Amino acid sequence: MYTENKPSVGILGGDKRLVYTGKYLCEEGFSVKAACFDKYPEKLDFFEEDIKKTVQESEIILLPVPPIKEGNLNCVYGEKAVDFGKEIVPLLKDKTVFTPMKEKLLTLYPQLSASKLYDYGEREDFAVRNAMPTAEGALYVAMGNTEKTICSSKCLVCGCGRIGKVLAPMLKRLWASVWVSARKPEDIGWIEANGMNSLRTDGLEICQLDFEIIFNTVPHMVFDKKLLSRLDKKTLIIDLASVPGGVDFKVSEELGIKAIHALSLPGKMSPDTAGKIIKDTVVNMLREAEM
Amino acid sequence: MYTENKPSVGILGGDKRLVYTGKYLCEEGFSVKAACFDKYPEKLDFFEEDIKKTVQESEIILLPVPPIKEGNLNCVYGEKAVDFGKEIVPLLKDKTVFTPMKEKLLTLYPQLSASKLYDYGEREDFAVRNAMPTAEGALYVAMGNTEKTICSSKCLVCGCGRIGKVLAPMLKRLWASVWVSARKPEDIGWIEANGMNSLRTDGLEICQLDFEIIFNTVPHMVFDKKLLSRLDKKTLIIDLASVPGGVDFKVSEELGIKAIHALSLPGKMSPDTAGKIIKDTVVNMLREAEM
Amino acid sequence: MYTENKPSVGILGGDKRLVYTGKYLCEEGFSVKAACFDKYPEKLDFFEEDIKKTVQESEIILLPVPPIKEGNLNCVYGEKAVDFGKEIVPLLKDKTVFTPMKEKLLTLYPQLSASKLYDYGEREDFAVRNAMPTAEGALYVAMGNTEKTICSSKCLVCGCGRIGKVLAPMLKRLWASVWVSARKPEDIGWIEANGMNSLRTDGLEICQLDFEIIFNTVPHMVFDKKLLSRLDKKTLIIDLASVPGGVDFKVSEELGIKAIHALSLPGKMSPDTAGKIIKDTVVNMLREAEM
Amino acid sequence: MYTENKPSVGILGGDKRLVYTGKYLCEEGFSVKAACFDKYPEKLDFFEEDIKKTVQESEIILLPVPPIKEGNLNCVYGEKAVDFGKEIVPLLKDKTVFTPMKEKLLTLYPQLSASKLYDYGEREDFAVRNAMPTAEGALYVAMGNTEKTICSSKCLVCGCGRIGKVLAPMLKRLWASVWVSARKPEDIGWIEANGMNSLRTDGLEICQLDFEIIFNTVPHMVFDKKLLSRLDKKTLIIDLASVPGGVDFKVSEELGIKAIHALSLPGKMSPDTAGKIIKDTVVNMLREAEM
Repeated sequence: MYTENKPSVGILGGDKRLVYTGKYLCEEGFSVKAACFDKYPEKLDFFEEDIKKTVQESEIILLPVPPIKEGNLNCVYGEKAVDFGKEIVPLLKDKTVFTPMKEKLLTLYPQLSASKLYDYGEREDFAVRNAMPTAEGALYVAMGNTEKTICSSKCLVCGCGRIGKVLAPMLKRLWASVWVSARKPEDIGWIEANGMNSLRTDGLEICQLDFEIIFNTVPHMVFDKKLLSRLDKKTLIIDLASVPGGVDFKVSEELGIKAIHALSLPGKMSPDTAGKIIKDTVVNMLREAEM
Repeated sequence: MYTENKPSVGILGGDKRLVYTGKYLCEEGFSVKAACFDKYPEKLDFFEEDIKKTVQESEIILLPVPPIKEGNLNCVYGEKAVDFGKEIVPLLKDKTVFTPMKEKLLTLYPQLSASKLYDYGEREDFAVRNAMPTAEGALYVAMGNTEKTICSSKCLVCGCGRIGKVLAPMLKRLWASVWVSARKPEDIGWIEANGMNSLRTDGLEICQLDFEIIFNTVPHMVFDKKLLSRLDKKTLIIDLASVPGGVDFKVSEELGIKAIHALSLPGKMSPDTAGKIIKDTVVNMLREAEM
Repeated sequence: MYTENKPSVGILGGDKRLVYTGKYLCEEGFSVKAACFDKYPEKLDFFEEDIKKTVQESEIILLPVPPIKEGNLNCVYGEKAVDFGKEIVPLLKDKTVFTPMKEKLLTLYPQLSASKLYDYGEREDFAVRNAMPTAEGALYVAMGNTEKTICSSKCLVCGCGRIGKVLAPMLKRLWASVWVSARKPEDIGWIEANGMNSLRTDGLEICQLDFEIIFNTVPHMVFDKKLLSRLDKKTLIIDLASVPGGVDFKVSEELGIKAIHALSLPGKMSPDTAGKIIKDTVVNMLREAEM
Repeated sequence: MYTENKPSVGILGGDKRLVYTGKYLCEEGFSVKAACFDKYPEKLDFFEEDIKKTVQESEIILLPVPPIKEGNLNCVYGEKAVDFGKEIVPLLKDKTVFTPMKEKLLTLYPQLSASKLYDYGEREDFAVRNAMPTAEGALYVAMGNTEKTICSSKCLVCGCGRIGKVLAPMLKRLWASVWVSARKPEDIGWIEANGMNSLRTDGLEICQLDFEIIFNTVPHMVFDKKLLSRLDKKTLIIDLASVPGGVDFKVSEELGIKAIHALSLPGKMSPDTAGKIIKDTVVNMLREAEM
């Protein structure tokens, strides 16, 4: 069905990324409606005032990243708050819904089990593609918070998952001196096979820590009081891990070490690329499901 | 035990790689004996003439890549053929043996079930590290068989596994124009997140195939008669996939398309690095097993 | 004399860069005094309140980049304005002075011919080193003003001088699609030898101009009304050329094309690196002059 | 005249490069004749048996790199030796001739002053473009003569001219650890601005010299007995400088240090690219001279 009859898509809220997702879906021939963009600076063809109409006239519904904020639909450009549980959930009954954080939504709103939920945020292709805008965003934050060039800086990338595997070689290609920490032997292998210096994440406490910039990607406490107190005061820490992150920010502040929790970089820095990534992922899912 | 009492290691045969493995093990403080290197151009301290003595006086035994060749121990520098089944297998009873291709050995020599076999060839860290010497070797073969620079050449890397993921960015960093084919959406995502052009491996037949160099890493038939006949006669194909490879070499020859099956590149091109990789892997295994 | 008796250095004003220059000179064993830093957030050992004393007690005087602003000494952290002609010039009589823009100073203050002026700003090693912080700064400005990643963006670097030769390969290493324009055949050669696409600067008017980001480095009008009107409205132009730059900013604004004149990037973005570059250059000059 | 009436070109001898030059000239619409390719494995349309006819019927004559070998025309694929002075020089009287090594030819054959000689070998754009095939060739030689990967190797590039400026960053992009030696402060600046380690060529004797591969590009004796005897026996030296090179090969042999004088790499490794470079240079010259 995908190639012939593209399903109509209804987008509910979100930030600039979802505007781009809508644009790219239109370009690929999808029929799109997007609600809750009343305050968006431009008026786009596929904007629709009526949420209900948007849902009813669309075969699949697309929810933003994240879908909810404090109980309301996440809609940066919406005129007023929209209670997700009361106003959105009932509309979604029996609908096909593409969303991130499916499990969290189901826990909060068990009635959503009456919808056909597909989680695009969990997809490997979504996460892999987002690694590049995240890495570029991390670079931007680093550049804006150091007084040296990245070139010749001594950097540590803590963690060798998707983001680490994109960020570390990027720093190296900018001629930084790059160390990467990992736990798994195959990641240590990957680091060395790519000409970088490896450290064991669980052995950081016995390593020399004279880095100028530390990028953390590990989503649990790594830079605790013990480790932070061994750092030079001028070290810049950029934590890319989702809340609560891997840095004890209270302690770093006490110690006078600048630590920045840099979240949602793709949406903030590259909404165009990030919106295209959502589009690509949803299209991949439709293709695989032969929807 | 690892840090205090390093086990003594007996190496049986192999090529130059194993000589380097022996050297690096000695450097790390292991006691090493290596048999079947009688014809090696240098005489090294840890060489031992007597196979039996090597096995008996070593706590762990290290077999080469591959361990056997036509029923004999693979020993490039041995004076005479050593029947693996008759001469080696009985010696290994009750011994701890590090080898590649464990399953194949057990099928051929069921008595080996009386040994404690550990497969280092299957290890992810071994394979990941070998990707770099393989990729550099592929580059060398390409350079020696084209009349253009790699810079500005249009290259296809077919397959996006460990080797593809190291080779493709390397070609890109040499300023080639790089396409990578893959099957999985996350690999397509990885390719694009890294600024390269993606193709779907199962869609190659409908793609334009005007590549100057094609590197295949897919270990089953991809470049069959149909695909080969769509290539320009001047295309160079380098097949990096293990036997039987992914190219119909008979057809490519008929068509006058140069296709090279480039095997065992780490051992041929970078025995030092490749020998160090074997050492690293075995040390990782000892550490994990707390041997 | 250089290695044994390092001359004492007096720094007069400037921005954060000169603070770093002072620090690095101290680290190399020079005796340093720096005046006009009263409002600097830290109190550093080598700060000196008295300008006169700073000059009198220093063997060589170091002026900042630029040395003057609207007739006053350029001193960002000075408590009050210091008239360069009245207060500084007389003090410099017979002194050895390292400064940028020597010719301009001599034109404005002919009495300076009684000083021994050395121009560090004109030095090739100064300019070459500054290209990296300039290029990184340009990248930062680009990242902050586009909604796509640099990766996969189509970029034009206009001009192939020192900055172009550092910026263009950096963009390429970030996986942008890079075009560089130049006039000289050897620069066209350099561009192609480095795997990038070349355009002739004087032929831009007949080229397709579908770039997402244009970096101009040519210090005279290139992007005039004719050229600007052929650009897509979404093109981002970053002009790195010194005043008046190479872009008709009035026309670009009328056309709704975002054009940014990004000046003094090393000082703004990387004062530490930029200060070290001043130090390195001055030390090179002392060594060459055997002062 | 260039765009409308392309001059007819007569190629006299040379190696495979000149065959490619001929092909590319044909592709651009030039009328081409090429003599002395009787033994070339293919028969190409523009091959011409008769040297005299080739010269007489061509408006410009193209001589190969180098034009002569031991008094004869350099013609790798010619059936018999052609005495340059007796058979070629008289034919060239009054002709427009594009050649490398113009000065050397004029010294050897003063009668050539009756020809209009243009030196393409001296051109900056020729030299700059040839740096890439030279650098790739150097890489190939290095790969074939070391037992380690280039990745992680410690390399010295001696000299920071055109070849050094292409080779050093290429090694760095292959994740080697790269040092570059230079004399001029601006080259030291370039090296550091590009994230590499700099050494002063005239200070090599006091540097630590624990390099795994040394690439020399300096065309006079650098690696003399004193320097060579300080190297590890396993160092590989690749001398890219034209005869007599910068290495005392006799001493290196005595010391058991492998030193390779790798000459004419573009022609040997990348005749296609190298032939295109000759074509591009000649076309640039015609365009500039408005011939």
